[in-house]
Amino acid sequence: MKLFNGERLDYIAGTDLKVLQSPNVFSFSIDAILLGRFVQVPIQKGNILDLCTGNGVIPALLTTRSKANIIGVEIQNKLVDMARRTSELNELHNQIQFVESDLNHIPSELKRGFFDVVTCNPPYFETVTDDEKNRNEHFAIARHEIYCTLEDVVRVSSQYVKQKGKVALVHRPERLTDIVHHMRTYRIEPKRIQFVHPKVNKDANMVLVEGIKDGKAGVTCLPPIVVYNEQGTYTEQFSSIYEGK
Amino acid sequence: MKLFNGERLDYIAGTDLKVLQSPNVFSFSIDAILLGRFVQVPIQKGNILDLCTGNGVIPALLTTRSKANIIGVEIQNKLVDMARRTSELNELHNQIQFVESDLNHIPSELKRGFFDVVTCNPPYFETVTDDEKNRNEHFAIARHEIYCTLEDVVRVSSQYVKQKGKVALVHRPERLTDIVHHMRTYRIEPKRIQFVHPKVNKDANMVLVEGIKDGKAGVTCLPPIVVYNEQGTYTEQFSSIYEGK
Repeated sequence: MKLFNGERLDYIAGTDLKVLQSPNVFSFSIDAILLGRFVQVPIQKGNILDLCTGNGVIPALLTTRSKANIIGVEIQNKLVDMARRTSELNELHNQIQFVESDLNHIPSELKRGFFDVVTCNPPYFETVTDDEKNRNEHFAIARHEIYCTLEDVVRVSSQYVKQKGKVALVHRPERLTDIVHHMRTYRIEPKRIQFVHPKVNKDANMVLVEGIKDGKAGVTCLPPIVVYNEQGTYTEQFSSIYEGK
Repeated sequence: MKLFNGERLDYIAGTDLKVLQSPNVFSFSIDAILLGRFVQVPIQKGNILDLCTGNGVIPALLTTRSKANIIGVEIQNKLVDMARRTSELNELHNQIQFVESDLNHIPSELKRGFFDVVTCNPPYFETVTDDEKNRNEHFAIARHEIYCTLEDVVRVSSQYVKQKGKVALVHRPERLTDIVHHMRTYRIEPKRIQFVHPKVNKDANMVLVEGIKDGKAGVTCLPPIVVYNEQGTYTEQFSSIYEGK
């Protein structure tokens, strides 16, 4: 495997999978892994769509949990290329495909109302300064709502998921109202919510939400995930979730 | 103080206040106290409205945190009577008034857009069986959406709170989507959310939500409250919140 300038290989915790990362372009973070562990997936067969897939870390992780076919959609060519090489390196190219596309103009080969599960770790921030955009456009696109808004993500997820299929997102808790509001607007009824707190006595800094297309109202708020203990190391709870134990 | 059949006096934890309770009609629970501790109130002056006030435990508790005038609205005559006697017993009748009224037909003496804070510990359950209703109508009215729905509560709260004033509710987490959705619909932007878990590894069984009328989008998800430790006694964290320390 040829590594390009600035690239490195990192393991996904609790798996044998190596993922190509590039700190210059995009590195996956705890958020993507927690989403990949949180979402409920069909085990033996089915179809999963991962929007804003980046370097494809969520599809890679999901292969350890499901035999479903997985499609990742990503707008940035460099990231699609890294995702494809990661997939080949791990011999997952029979299970995962990547589509280079703007979320708002997905090619018609992808069928609407078709997927059992849609996942997304979208850009978190609503606005971007010119300075941020100029400093590193790859980062800016992955982190800011430049090419897709949260509402786009929810709307498109709802278009591609099948009836009673699941849509799972990770986002900042600040956006909880927006997430829940858009989900209901686009007929994804929130069913499971889990907050992630950096420490037990700190405000949440991540939220995981899973909804069902045309599901019944009523949401379960799962036990909080606490990342660090008082010593500043991972809590046992976090480690076991992160590593899928 | 004359106690009627079945009535008893209970202290509000962490205060010198005694509250008239009647297990036959209504007893306050942890929920009301946590809401009374959670909501942000003006300290020196102002006006607070407590909807579905029951036996007036939230107004009583709020007098320990605020010098504001407090009005409690309750539809059940028996509870209004208990609330008034509680208020007299604690010599709080100069600070608290009670209005016997259906939430959906509040008398015009109460001014809309007037209150700094509106609180509500509403009925939690959407439907009631005839059996439940017949067994104890007082309970049924306090616990089920017979005379007011969650949407009524949010709509009326929004009518009576002033611009940039606060609306705080306690409810079941199952209804989180409804709460957030109705709040946004009625221009109460959720700003603070806190979940209460019976144990650290259990799903939440209560949620506290505070919003601001025409507030800016963006919500803070506070550290979770965990009620019981592994020994089955109150956690230190819960005790100190419950007692307002």
